Amino acid sequence: MQQELEVGLIALATTGEVQAASADIAIATTCTSDLIDITDRVGAIVADTGIVEGIALVSAPHTTCAVIVNEAEPGFIDDFKAALEAIAPQSREYAHNDAPHAEEFEAPNGYAHVRAAFLSSHSALLPVRNGKLALGRWQRIFFVELDRARPRTCQVTLVGRAR
Amino acid sequence: MQQELEVGLIALATTGEVQAASADIAIATTCTSDLIDITDRVGAIVADTGIVEGIALVSAPHTTCAVIVNEAEPGFIDDFKAALEAIAPQSREYAHNDAPHAEEFEAPNGYAHVRAAFLSSHSALLPVRNGKLALGRWQRIFFVELDRARPRTCQVTLVGRAR
Amino acid sequence: MQQELEVGLIALATTGEVQAASADIAIATTCTSDLIDITDRVGAIVADTGIVEGIALVSAPHTTCAVIVNEAEPGFIDDFKAALEAIAPQSREYAHNDAPHAEEFEAPNGYAHVRAAFLSSHSALLPVRNGKLALGRWQRIFFVELDRARPRTCQVTLVGRAR
Repeated sequence: MQQELEVGLIALATTGEVQAASADIAIATTCTSDLIDITDRVGAIVADTGIVEGIALVSAPHTTCAVIVNEAEPGFIDDFKAALEAIAPQSREYAHNDAPHAEEFEAPNGYAHVRAAFLSSHSALLPVRNGKLALGRWQRIFFVELDRARPRTCQVTLVGRAR
Repeated sequence: MQQELEVGLIALATTGEVQAASADIAIATTCTSDLIDITDRVGAIVADTGIVEGIALVSAPHTTCAVIVNEAEPGFIDDFKAALEAIAPQSREYAHNDAPHAEEFEAPNGYAHVRAAFLSSHSALLPVRNGKLALGRWQRIFFVELDRARPRTCQVTLVGRAR
Repeated sequence: MQQELEVGLIALATTGEVQAASADIAIATTCTSDLIDITDRVGAIVADTGIVEGIALVSAPHTTCAVIVNEAEPGFIDDFKAALEAIAPQSREYAHNDAPHAEEFEAPNGYAHVRAAFLSSHSALLPVRNGKLALGRWQRIFFVELDRARPRTCQVTLVGRAR
């Protein structure tokens, strides 16, 4: 247990009641593979709740979206779009493209479902410390549109110790 | 902070004690890439616990299973199976296939471990609101068998504010 | 609801207050695709907190690391490294490799960002039961270095019912 890894117990919450809170963020995506940086919005919600230590769940109630955590650097965003296209090309045939969707017109989006399933990331979970998202220096939270432009919702759920 | 994104704080829990609860779901999978829709079972557990706002963790205590959230549409399921086969073909050679497993017979399943590691999704986390899983219209929770047919367990853990 | 799936409600926490706790683990990674088994360290933190039922979030505050759950078997680890190299080869050109990073020298690591985004796994979430990580027989928690050797931090956050 005492090798090259150092373990430091930062805080054991013994005061303050644990609470739960929820909020929604409305997002208008603009294109396939749109990456929208929602870090500041999630951070504002964390601050509003008064929760100082716990976890923040950032989730998409959609089957063709993802939430990822990475660097807000344009080169990476281009690389990621290219990698998504390589793993499930938009022009390939998908069985899902032939599915009937009775209630609304939907363009063929089999590629978007496969990308979503591969990322298997309809949500991201972040620690909250000292009332703030405990993100690393380069970490930003992205809501990812894997389908075409459309109105979307991002759910934020917090569980943790309040002030 | 006030761009095209709208932030709506839905609920800040100030009443009701936060609780934790656990349950298991026993699952008999039938084949490689079997996708089992467990949404209703998880929903029933949420209802049983009386937790109204918080999070539900759905996890597999197995190294060759996954939990994903996507649409229950047969075409998508076929597309996903084909994509899993493309990323880590069952017929390829895997170093793990030569590993000794002393205590039980195990067929070579290196492909299943690589698929599990790529999905990196032994669990999914869903928000709970108003005593129900806050799923989107098309979202279903799938327990995914990445190995061969076998008896499996799915763990459900809830933390949230109770009525 | 009563098909081949059996649902067993194990425990509904009605006693003991829900608490939150945080800890850090310092890790010195040694190479690209280094997989470091941190299961015992996380387990020790769980024990220290006295939390008996709830969830444990194990997260990396880095954009080129991952946390995955799989088997500690050398063959699998080799298979996984080969699969990471196949999905985003280190020798390929990446737009991110040309990004300016003013404050510190950084070797080109576009491959590491794409791998991190594909795994979309900067964190793993485990259930806690009876004061212990409720891991399956073969499950181990790995901190994954996707970039080159460097000092890293792993965050552990617990929310659950204490004794």
